[in-house]
Order: sequence, then structure tokens, then C-alpha cells
Amino acid sequence: MAFKYERLDKDNVVLLMVDHQAGLLSLVRDFSPDDFKNNVLALADIARFFEIPTILTTSFEDGPNGPMVPELKEMFPDAPYYARPGQINAWDNEDFVKAIKDTGKKQILIAGVVTEVCVAFPTLSALEEGYEVFVVTDASGTFTPTVREAAWERMSQAGAQMMTWFGVGCELHRDWRNDIEGFGGLLASHLPQYANLMQSYSQQTA
Amino acid sequence: MAFKYERLDKDNVVLLMVDHQAGLLSLVRDFSPDDFKNNVLALADIARFFEIPTILTTSFEDGPNGPMVPELKEMFPDAPYYARPGQINAWDNEDFVKAIKDTGKKQILIAGVVTEVCVAFPTLSALEEGYEVFVVTDASGTFTPTVREAAWERMSQAGAQMMTWFGVGCELHRDWRNDIEGFGGLLASHLPQYANLMQSYSQQTA
Amino acid sequence: MAFKYERLDKDNVVLLMVDHQAGLLSLVRDFSPDDFKNNVLALADIARFFEIPTILTTSFEDGPNGPMVPELKEMFPDAPYYARPGQINAWDNEDFVKAIKDTGKKQILIAGVVTEVCVAFPTLSALEEGYEVFVVTDASGTFTPTVREAAWERMSQAGAQMMTWFGVGCELHRDWRNDIEGFGGLLASHLPQYANLMQSYSQQTA
Amino acid sequence: MAFKYERLDKDNVVLLMVDHQAGLLSLVRDFSPDDFKNNVLALADIARFFEIPTILTTSFEDGPNGPMVPELKEMFPDAPYYARPGQINAWDNEDFVKAIKDTGKKQILIAGVVTEVCVAFPTLSALEEGYEVFVVTDASGTFTPTVREAAWERMSQAGAQMMTWFGVGCELHRDWRNDIEGFGGLLASHLPQYANLMQSYSQQTA
Amino acid sequence: MAFKYERLDKDNVVLLMVDHQAGLLSLVRDFSPDDFKNNVLALADIARFFEIPTILTTSFEDGPNGPMVPELKEMFPDAPYYARPGQINAWDNEDFVKAIKDTGKKQILIAGVVTEVCVAFPTLSALEEGYEVFVVTDASGTFTPTVREAAWERMSQAGAQMMTWFGVGCELHRDWRNDIEGFGGLLASHLPQYANLMQSYSQQTA
Amino acid sequence: MAFKYERLDKDNVVLLMVDHQAGLLSLVRDFSPDDFKNNVLALADIARFFEIPTILTTSFEDGPNGPMVPELKEMFPDAPYYARPGQINAWDNEDFVKAIKDTGKKQILIAGVVTEVCVAFPTLSALEEGYEVFVVTDASGTFTPTVREAAWERMSQAGAQMMTWFGVGCELHRDWRNDIEGFGGLLASHLPQYANLMQSYSQQTA
Amino acid sequence: MAFKYERLDKDNVVLLMVDHQAGLLSLVRDFSPDDFKNNVLALADIARFFEIPTILTTSFEDGPNGPMVPELKEMFPDAPYYARPGQINAWDNEDFVKAIKDTGKKQILIAGVVTEVCVAFPTLSALEEGYEVFVVTDASGTFTPTVREAAWERMSQAGAQMMTWFGVGCELHRDWRNDIEGFGGLLASHLPQYANLMQSYSQQTA
Amino acid sequence: MAFKYERLDKDNVVLLMVDHQAGLLSLVRDFSPDDFKNNVLALADIARFFEIPTILTTSFEDGPNGPMVPELKEMFPDAPYYARPGQINAWDNEDFVKAIKDTGKKQILIAGVVTEVCVAFPTLSALEEGYEVFVVTDASGTFTPTVREAAWERMSQAGAQMMTWFGVGCELHRDWRNDIEGFGGLLASHLPQYANLMQSYSQQTA
Repeated sequence: MAFKYERLDKDNVVLLMVDHQAGLLSLVRDFSPDDFKNNVLALADIARFFEIPTILTTSFEDGPNGPMVPELKEMFPDAPYYARPGQINAWDNEDFVKAIKDTGKKQILIAGVVTEVCVAFPTLSALEEGYEVFVVTDASGTFTPTVREAAWERMSQAGAQMMTWFGVGCELHRDWRNDIEGFGGLLASHLPQYANLMQSYSQQTA
Repeated sequence: MAFKYERLDKDNVVLLMVDHQAGLLSLVRDFSPDDFKNNVLALADIARFFEIPTILTTSFEDGPNGPMVPELKEMFPDAPYYARPGQINAWDNEDFVKAIKDTGKKQILIAGVVTEVCVAFPTLSALEEGYEVFVVTDASGTFTPTVREAAWERMSQAGAQMMTWFGVGCELHRDWRNDIEGFGGLLASHLPQYANLMQSYSQQTA
Repeated sequence: MAFKYERLDKDNVVLLMVDHQAGLLSLVRDFSPDDFKNNVLALADIARFFEIPTILTTSFEDGPNGPMVPELKEMFPDAPYYARPGQINAWDNEDFVKAIKDTGKKQILIAGVVTEVCVAFPTLSALEEGYEVFVVTDASGTFTPTVREAAWERMSQAGAQMMTWFGVGCELHRDWRNDIEGFGGLLASHLPQYANLMQSYSQQTA
Repeated sequence: MAFKYERLDKDNVVLLMVDHQAGLLSLVRDFSPDDFKNNVLALADIARFFEIPTILTTSFEDGPNGPMVPELKEMFPDAPYYARPGQINAWDNEDFVKAIKDTGKKQILIAGVVTEVCVAFPTLSALEEGYEVFVVTDASGTFTPTVREAAWERMSQAGAQMMTWFGVGCELHRDWRNDIEGFGGLLASHLPQYANLMQSYSQQTA
Repeated sequence: MAFKYERLDKDNVVLLMVDHQAGLLSLVRDFSPDDFKNNVLALADIARFFEIPTILTTSFEDGPNGPMVPELKEMFPDAPYYARPGQINAWDNEDFVKAIKDTGKKQILIAGVVTEVCVAFPTLSALEEGYEVFVVTDASGTFTPTVREAAWERMSQAGAQMMTWFGVGCELHRDWRNDIEGFGGLLASHLPQYANLMQSYSQQTA
Repeated sequence: MAFKYERLDKDNVVLLMVDHQAGLLSLVRDFSPDDFKNNVLALADIARFFEIPTILTTSFEDGPNGPMVPELKEMFPDAPYYARPGQINAWDNEDFVKAIKDTGKKQILIAGVVTEVCVAFPTLSALEEGYEVFVVTDASGTFTPTVREAAWERMSQAGAQMMTWFGVGCELHRDWRNDIEGFGGLLASHLPQYANLMQSYSQQTA
Repeated sequence: MAFKYERLDKDNVVLLMVDHQAGLLSLVRDFSPDDFKNNVLALADIARFFEIPTILTTSFEDGPNGPMVPELKEMFPDAPYYARPGQINAWDNEDFVKAIKDTGKKQILIAGVVTEVCVAFPTLSALEEGYEVFVVTDASGTFTPTVREAAWERMSQAGAQMMTWFGVGCELHRDWRNDIEGFGGLLASHLPQYANLMQSYSQQTA
Repeated sequence: MAFKYERLDKDNVVLLMVDHQAGLLSLVRDFSPDDFKNNVLALADIARFFEIPTILTTSFEDGPNGPMVPELKEMFPDAPYYARPGQINAWDNEDFVKAIKDTGKKQILIAGVVTEVCVAFPTLSALEEGYEVFVVTDASGTFTPTVREAAWERMSQAGAQMMTWFGVGCELHRDWRNDIEGFGGLLASHLPQYANLMQSYSQQTA
């Protein structure tokens, strides 16, 4: 049976940002804090750049889990935002699911904290309902690399695709000519080593 | 063919704790001793918290493998307990299997030492008999990370799902509102970093 | 259903070298620079040794991505070479795909920078069109080992086979007697430890 | 479709030891030399303990690859032994395959150097012919852990099962009561940490 | 010039616990949370076991740094405790230094968070005043292993001695016969692998 | 001979930023690009916060080494800046040394790329001239951790002190009360995990 | 002041093997069990080869620490052997120290378990008494690499020299011509990779 | 006492290449084979570039240790070359030492295999005789990183300076203007990432 390559399509995808909260972030230890912050914000920038509908949710944000990180709130001031009263699997929150369904999109990008719970549970739920699910693995964090590997294995076995923010951005953009400066700027602001290439280039060709 | 997400269900699951014995534990080197002890006890606490039927078994406990660790004995004083006279695969012990079947549950949570034998063999046997099997990977230990990876690969290929104690607890709990204090206390006692969040929170909101 | 082992066949395979450009190479951090350079050149030597049709392509080579590394240009002076004007997935470049189809080969060897984009995207496209795809993983580089693992998982899930340059060379050669000196020389020039074996052997038997 | 657990069966399995040669062993860097030597000899001891038919083969043993390590020769003085004149995939050697078929076994245990070639190629060939193949991963070595991971992925994808010598021994033994002293002695001689448990036990119970 | 071995002397030593606060602990990533918690509590148990005068201090505990972890407060209810109003180097707090000097001890054991600041600064200050300083390295944590290495280098260069809680306990105890059960119990409660040895021993000799 | 603790003194220290150039930064592989960028900018922010005289220098900035990274230029628009015409050891540039001496400071903070050359050489030169030298190790990068360790060893042996930007900031600040908001803001902008603590705190106490 | 190179001298050195006991060995996790066993036995073989007086000691061998490993007892049947009744620092055992002094040697080789206690304490004591102390670091084991690093730092700071069994053997042998076959055999039996070189050599020159 | 910075001086230094033999190189596992080969050849190129007198020596080159690697022989056809008949410490070979002394140089650069023996022993001997010794750590290899660390510690304690080939080249060159193209070419041929910078630069400025 032939494989069918369903590419990420900016007109058919919704992004779910799950539980990137100030308290929960202190649990993330499979990425350095700098790297993880950068990865999360890079994904957020991608969503804005491609005008992808984005849905935010948090778990118990008034308790020790803490508030959603302010950068995300600021970047998505008008996005649907669901402070879940208790459901651990965000898919158990009817408002959240309704918001997804209301977008009419068939592809889901998802990232969250922690990977094996806040990402894996809604991923499995979404797969069951027929969505294509693309996990943004480097914008999702958890306790240890070993825990992460188990989470990836479970999600992959169920049919989710493991991606990273850079791959997501490139698959959505398709062609540099769609916006060279915009996309280049996005990469430069989240890849210091790419920014260096650009700076050397611009000086040397000046 | 659509994926079906069969969640861990506290009313339909049985936990198997296989060969967590004082001697065998000295063989476990893919986790630090502190981490591994914590993971095993966290899983045990989860079983008690959700009142999941739990079955214990040991291999040759009168020899160098040593006795089951006392904490588990104390936590499950009334649990079925099978000191296997020689079977390496616990599933070859008829009493053990009968105890599982008598629970009437269709989902199995399993953890043990060492992963590629004491966990993998009964996992494969249970899968063959139609059980859904969820391996609690971080409460299962073995000689090296490389050995662990091979064991995961074999079990996953056969259809078992790789989980961790934190994911198990969260998938069973479903909703914080079912018992906020109880579940929070469980997490705090096994996640020092989460306990810190709770302590800061309680002081700052005092 | 029985597994069918379709071996790499030097008469039925085409090699794609995607975006090994001077600027992009500075992004590769899942291999040491020495190791990666050696792996890429070893793959190139294999292609020349077995006279495998090879197709080169670059992305935006006049900008910060930089020119294709000169060693590859020199090794394949007559190979089809496509400086893509903007397409990120090389398979979106019609000339590139036409060149592949014109070879009439049914197997594709692919390597490139970065793995999750420049390798993964054309790999998925080629699989969709019915090609057998063999990814030369150690001649493909990316930001971190974690990113690499996600890329492998996605490509493998779709049916691509993960290989390395040494395995590719051996699977193509089939039998040392086809050319002992030639193949031995190829290995010696890219495996210092094998060259040492050969040198000790030749001295000791002199 | 239900999973079927075909256990390793000492009466239905043949062991293939491929290219454990003095020169080639210097290429193995995904295990320490002490660990790898121990793993290979442990597997050999298992074969002798369970009287599993064992077939040895080497590649170009008169050249830099060097002779088979003497310990294996001594342990299997009467085993079929094929010094291949050039075939890289041992399955391309008719005598070797005939020797396997003559055993009438349907399960294959395989280990060798290097993993992605000398193990992977015959593994894929054997799978194609309908054998069940169990790769003894820790008695198989290669250049780097990354190369190993690619080799495992390819073999696993094709249906081979990833095991280790300890798991193999335990799955074959089934029940300690079949030979407590013999099996315990085997473990003690290859697991220093298990030997320590046994020594403490015997002193303390003396 | 001969080396003089000044052993840790339980009658001549004072323990400083610096800034083990709920918030700051989330910064510690050179140890796993389980390991670090265990190390800190083991050191505290040692201080109580040997009745070593212990002095606690915190930095800005009403702000984001958070309160001292409750376990330490409970273990040392009567210890001098200095919530520093702003001094980063605890040695700049006159009350803290006076408390140290009032003990009349000439040896200092110190642990804290983070290593290169809260431990290193008072260590250097104490060395300047002629104290012998023993840094309990595994009860002191910081951002990364690289930061830790730099901190160790600086302190060691100045004359501080790098120790760990286990070494501290053993050097203070001198002879098991001073209290076999007490010291054995202390070790067992903080070294799961040692507890296992004790449990096997007690069962086998029962 | 008693140790003398000469603390970093904001009124007696000069910062040297050596060769943080766009091209050279692609050589740095002992830190992730995100981490390294953050470390360098954190050090720059510290210099500005404490108004420490800062001197910039580059090596061959018109060639492949590339221009100084623009962030540093922007942060220190009026700082002395020496584009060295060829001297590898910046101390061989008379203007650079004169600028240092003109500050009248006796303590030197230094960071640069690569550690064993651009940092180590001027460090050794400055030590020879009687300066106290504090190497900001995490704002200095090089090819591999092994190269870094050798560089640290050489500099430390000569009397330089190994520090990190966080330790430098804290040793300069001395007391939070000197500027709570300013220093807290500085930390929050370079330590995502500290920013999270502050955010949770401010919400919870709101 | 010039450095004086006092080489290890087989006529002026005594070897101390401290607490290599079956129970304690389960605590060693900074080496793999195979590697550590090999290192300890290699050191023992060196002592026998050079006829170095060797002194054995154990701590509480009737309890959970377990008996000295039988290989050492067998290799040194006539060596002084002190089962310490309680002293943690073996140097506190007068019989042990007297045995050392009775040898009249001025150089001490020491190895043991665990490094920061059983090795470090007598090392510091011996240094104080004017002995030259050479720590055989790879025949000494402890809980983690981090603990080991702290122990090395403390011992090195006091003047002990960090060595390994291979270096010890070579420094004692001085010249291959003193016994080519004997020394070569010793290396071959503990360095599988060297044994391979010898085997290839002997075959190729046969 | 002030530190004196004695820089490497191309007119006052001699390079010793000790035992880089085909057999012994198979023992080196603290660097990848590609990296190590590159490091050794880079050092050799440096010696030729600066016309530094170079002395070669081997140990038992007619036996399993194997011949000196041919690249070194070819690069230094006229260099003094001592095939030692048995001395392990090359400094025990009178001809070797005489050759060093005949150069009249006071600084020694040394590299070899294995680090703790072939490098450390002559390093300690040379220090004793008053030479300044600079160990080229990355052109010196051994069994494991742990063995390397012990060797560095011993040599550093005795006064040797730990360097790397890149640092050596830069300290010898002093100023790019002494030979921009020559030195740049040397770097480009041994630093693929630097070659990439140069290639991008030359294209972009063409």
C-alpha cells in the first residue's frame, strides 16, 4: 500500500499550545531553559507568520502550575484561550475541542508541557477522531530524555508524526519566494547560527 | 484504519510488579538508585491511590536474587503474592496468571526488573492473550540504556505501549477535580520539583 | 505477509545530494565536522566507484546558505546540478524530479543538510511516488541528535530505510571479489582504523 | 490481528556468529572492549549450554580483517565454519545457507561485526525466507551508537526482534529448575555483579 | 613541605546550609531532582547524627526565591537561621558570621544553591579568615555541569576541599564501632543500593 | 600562607570582549547556539548594568572571520573598539593594551572565541603583568568540551580564576538592596527559569 | 623549583587493595561491571608479575559489605590480610599500617572501593607520613563520575598522583626487553583490543 | 610571585611524535578515528609550516604495535627517527634524548599514543631536566576519557601545559600578517568548518 504524503498545509492546520505555564516549565529538563524557550517562541512566531489559527489552554493556572508564560499571551491576544478547570487531557474540555472543530482544519500541530501527558493525551484523542497530528517535539518538554523517548514511541505507534519547529516552518513555507525576507528574518531570530551566516553574507556583499 | 485510543481505566486495569527484589535491584544501572526507587514507589502509590488490583511476584527469593523490597510488601499487605519456584516468565506460573484473570480486567500495567526479561516476557505473553499492555518504563530497570532500548523495541513492535509512572497517574486520574489534594499530594511526594512549586505557592498565597 | 528484501542495486539506484552548502554545513551539530565531512565524501566516493548516477541540488546558493562544498562539485563535474530558485522540498523542483525519473532507476539514495527538511521532505515525496528510499543517515546532518531522532522516526514510519555510507557501500558491492583493491582502497581512505589494519597487514606479510 | 508470541525454543533455533575477527573487532566502538568481549563469549556459552547448533563464518580472514577470535574457535571446534571467499552478505554463501537449512530450525539467533552489514544483511535475507530472526544486539558491534541505531531501525522495520544475550539465555531456559547450578554458573561468569550477589549469598548462608 | 591531613572532626566543625529554597531549587540542573533532594537530606541527617552545629540562611525568601525547603526547617528547628535581607555572599551578613564564630569551630562544611555563588562566595571568605573549608559538592547544585566545574576549580584553587556527603559522613564517623546501627541506618535511608545489601544480608542470615 | 579573597569590584574592573565575530561563532560547539548567545549577551548586560568599562576587539573582521556580532556593537556604541590587523593575541596590539591600562583598573574580566586562543593568550599576558584575571567561561566558546578543558587547565594553572556570567553578576552586585528591580530584571531576561519564578510569584501575590 | 620525577619502582613500592568486597562492589557505578572487574584483576596481575608486596584489607566483611572478592584472595593467598573490625580509614588500623611500614617501601599504590573514602582517606594519611602515593584510579570505584571527580581533586590537591593500571604496569616495567612475553601476555589478557593485535600479528607472520 | 608567560617560540621548540603506530592507534578511543587522524596530521602540518625540528620514535614497530603511520613518515622524511628496541619511556632511549638536546631548544611539544604512558613518561622526564613541556592533548590518545583525565592531572600537577593543535599553531604564528595565505590554508585543511567560512567568503566577495 502506497504511502501518502500529506504535507502540512497552512490553510488546513490548527496549532494547539498546551500548558506552557510558568510553574510547569520548571519541570522541563530534556532541553536547556534557553533552548526550550527559543523553541516555543519560534513555534509561536511560525504560527503568526503563517496566520495559523492557534488555541491556547492551561491547567489549573491559579495554583502551583502557574500562569501561561506571558510571551505567549502577548503573541496571541485574540486566540481562544481555555483555562481548564481540571481536565488533564485537554481533549476532555468540550470548549477546547469545539474551538478546534470550529476551525474546520484537518491537521493539528501540537506542543506542550509535559510531553507524555499534556501533548500525548490530546494527540491520541485527536488521532482517534481522524485528525492528522504533527507533534512539535522540541517545543514540548518533560522530565528526562528517557521519558520523552517513551512518549514519542507511544504517539508514533498511534500514527502521530514527530516534527520540530524548523521542519514545521519549512514544510509550511514550501518556497522561499513566497516571502524571502519574512521567513529569513524568522529563522535569524531563532537560529543564532543562521543569523551569523546572514550577517557575514550581508557584510561581505555590501 | 482509524486508531482507537483505549485509555487506561482505573476500573479495568491490573498492576503487575515483577521481581523488584533486593539482589536483582543491584543489577539496575539505567537509572540512578534514587531515581529508580522513587519511580517504583510512585507507581505503587498510584496503584493504592486508585485502588488498582495489584499482583506481586518474585523469582527465587531465597537465593541471591534476594527478597522483594520491603516497601512494596508493606504497601500491598493483602495483594496476591507469588514467589515463583523457577519460572522465569511469570506468565508461566499458573497461579499468577489465574490471579490476573480472576480480576476480570482487560488492561495490564507492568513494571519489573530486569526489563528485557521479567517485564518483556510476560508482556509478550499477555499481548498474545489479548490484553492491552502498558509498560511502566521508568519503574522497570536493567543493565544499560542500550539493553533497555532493545527491550522497548521488541515490546513496542509487539503492540505494548511505553509509558511512565507520571503518565500512568495522569491518564488514570482524568480530572484534577476528582481529588485535588490527594493527587497533588501524590505528585508532591514523588516529584521534588513539583513539591517546591506547591510550597512556594502556598507560602506566597498565604 | 512475508518481508521482501530489495537490496540496493548499483544498476537500479540514483543518488541525491541535497544542499551540502558551505553556509548550511555550519548548522550541522549532530556529527563532528571531521566526521561529517568524511561521511559525505565517503558517500560521494561510493557513488563514483559504483558509477551511480548522482544528482546535485542546492538551495539559494547565492545567499547566506553559501555554495555547494567544492569537493562535491569537483567529484561530480558532469552530474545534473540544480540550484533551486526557492523550493525547499527539492521534489517541488520539476527539473530535479525529471532528472531522477530520466535515470529510470527505482531506488533512491539520499543525503543532505538538514535532515528533517532537505532530506525528509524529498524522501516522503519519493516514497509517495513509489520509490524505495534509502536515507544515508551519517551523510545527513542537522541541529541536534534530538532533531535527528525525530526526523528518522518520521521517515522510517513512512517506509524509508535508515542506512549509513558503510552499509550502502557494502550492500552495493555484494562481493569483495568484484574488486578487492578498489573497494579496499575506498574503505581505507575513509576509515582510518581500517587503513591501520591494512597497513599492519601489509608490513607484517611483507 | 492478535500478536503471536513465538518464544525462542532451544530445539528450534540455530546461532550464526558472523565475522567476529581480530581485525574487524578493532572497528567496534559502540561497546567498550571489555563489555563486548564479555557479551560475545556469554552468547557463545549460552549456545553451548543449550546445545544450540552454531555456525561460524568469516570474511577474508587471511587479510587485514584477521582471523576469527581464538576463543570462538576453541568453544566450537566441531561447528560448521565457512571462511567466505568474498561474499559480504553471508547469506550469499551457499554453503553457509545450506548448513542453516540442514539444521531444520526455523528460528535464527544472529550476532556479528559490524552490525549494519554482517548482521543486517543476512538478517534481512533470512526474514525474506521466512525465518524468525532474533538479533543479539549486544554481541554485535559497529562504529558508533548512531550507526547502530540506524541498523536496528532497518532490521526492526523488516520484522527482526532486537534482543540481548541475557534475554536470549533467559528465554531459552524457561525455568530455573531445568538446571539451577548450570544456569547460575553461566550468569555468574558473565555478570560480575551477579557473581557478587551469589558470593555474598553463599557466605552469608554458610 | 609535608602535607598535613586535617580530618573532619565532629567536635570542631560547623555546617552551613545556604539558600536551599523552594524557588532556587528549580534552577538546579546538574543533579536529578531525586538525587539532589536525597543528597541534601543525607547531609542534614549526618549533621544531626553527629550533633554538628548547623546554621541556616536564605536569600530573599519572601520573593521568587521562595522559602527554605520545609524538610530542613523541620530537621533543625533550633538552629540559627538567618533570612538575609539582601547580601548575596552570606559572609557579608554579620549575624551569620558571628554565629559561625560563636561556635568556636575551625572547620566549615558548606552546601548550597547555587554552587558558584551561594557556596563559592562564603567559601572564599571563610578561607581568607583561616577556616578549613570542605565543600559538600553533591548537596550543592547549579545550572549545568560546566558551571559546576568552573566553581569547583575556583574554590579548589583557593584551598577548599571538594567532598561529598558520603565521604563527609565516613570521615566524621571514623570507626563503625562508634555506632554500627545508627550509622548503618543513616546510610540505608539514603543509599537504596546499600539498603538492598542490608536487607539481603538480614534475610539470608535470619 | 593565607588565601586572600580579592572580590570582583565594579570600580576596579575592565571587561574585554574578544573576537565574538559572526564567522568565528560557527566554530563554537561546546555550548548550544542558544545558550552561548544568551551567555554572551548576559555578560554584556552585566557590564552595562554596572557601568564597567568595556573594550572590544576583533581579528581580521573583513575576512571569513566576519564582523563582530551586531548586538555587541549596539550595546557598546562608545566603547573602545580595535579591529586587529593581524595579532592573534590581542595583548600584542598596543592600542588594545593601552586602552586597558588607561582605565587604571587592576581586575580583568575576559570572554571570547575561541577559548584556548583568543581568551587564553591575553589572559596569560595579563597575568604576567600583574592583573587579576577572571575568565567568563560560559561566554567563551571553542571547538569541543575537551579543548575547553585543556584551556581551562592551562589558564587556571597560571592563576586565572574560572567564573561564569551569573557568578560575575552576583559578585559585582554584592547586595540585592543596591538595586532589586534592576538586577532582578537582568536575571529574568537571561534565565528563563528565573523569569518563571518571578512570574509565578507576581501572579500569586497579586 | 625543579620538578623531580620519582618513577614507580618495583623494588620500592607496596600495593594496597582496600575493600574490594562483594557487597560494596554493587555500589560502583562509575565503571561498567565488566570494565571494573577487568581493571581490578589487571592491577592484581601486575602486582604478581612484578612481585610487589601486596596488602589486602576489608571492612566489616561479615555484614552486608560482603567478603573480599574470591579472585583477589586466590591471587594473593599469602598476602597480609586485615579484616578491619570497624576502622573506616584503613590507616587507622595499626596492623595494616605496620604491615606497610614493615615492607620498608616508600611508594604506595592504592586502589579500593569506594574512591572518596576507602581510597582517599588512607591516601591522605600516607601522604602525611611522607609516602609517595599513586592512586590506581580505574581500579577504584564509586557511586558516580561526579563523586569520583571530587575525590580525585581532593587527593590530587594533597599531592597524590592519579594513575591507571596500564600506566602503572608500563612505568614499573621500564623496558619490554625485561620480559617481552610475560608483559605482553599480561596486556593481552586484560586488553581485548591488544590481544586482537597480537593475534593478527602472529597469524600474519606465521 | 608573578606568573611568567613563556610563549611557544618557533625558534626554541622541538616536536616529539611518540608511537603513532598503526596497531597502537586501534587502542585510541577518547577521540573518533576521523577526529584523531585529523588532529595528528594538523600538528604535523604545523611543524612543517613553522619548520620546527621534529623527532619521531616508535615502540616495537616490528610486532603487534605496527609501523608508524605512513603519513607521518612521508611528512618527515629526514627527521630523526628512533625505533626503540624496548624502552617504554622514550626518554630512556639515549639516542632520542641526545637528538632533543642537540637541537638546543628549551621548549618541547609532545604528542603520542597512549597519553598516560608514551606522552606522560617523557613529559615528566623532560620537566625534570628543566624543559618547558607543552602537551598537544588532542593529538594524543588513549583508552577512555577517564584515563585521559588522570593522565592530564598527573602531567599538569608536574608543571606541563595542556594545549591543543589549534592553540599551538596560533601561539607559534603570533600574527596573521606573517603569512596569511599559508596559515589560512593550514587551518582550512584541518577545520572543515573554517574551510566553509573561507569558501563562503571568497564566493560572496568574488
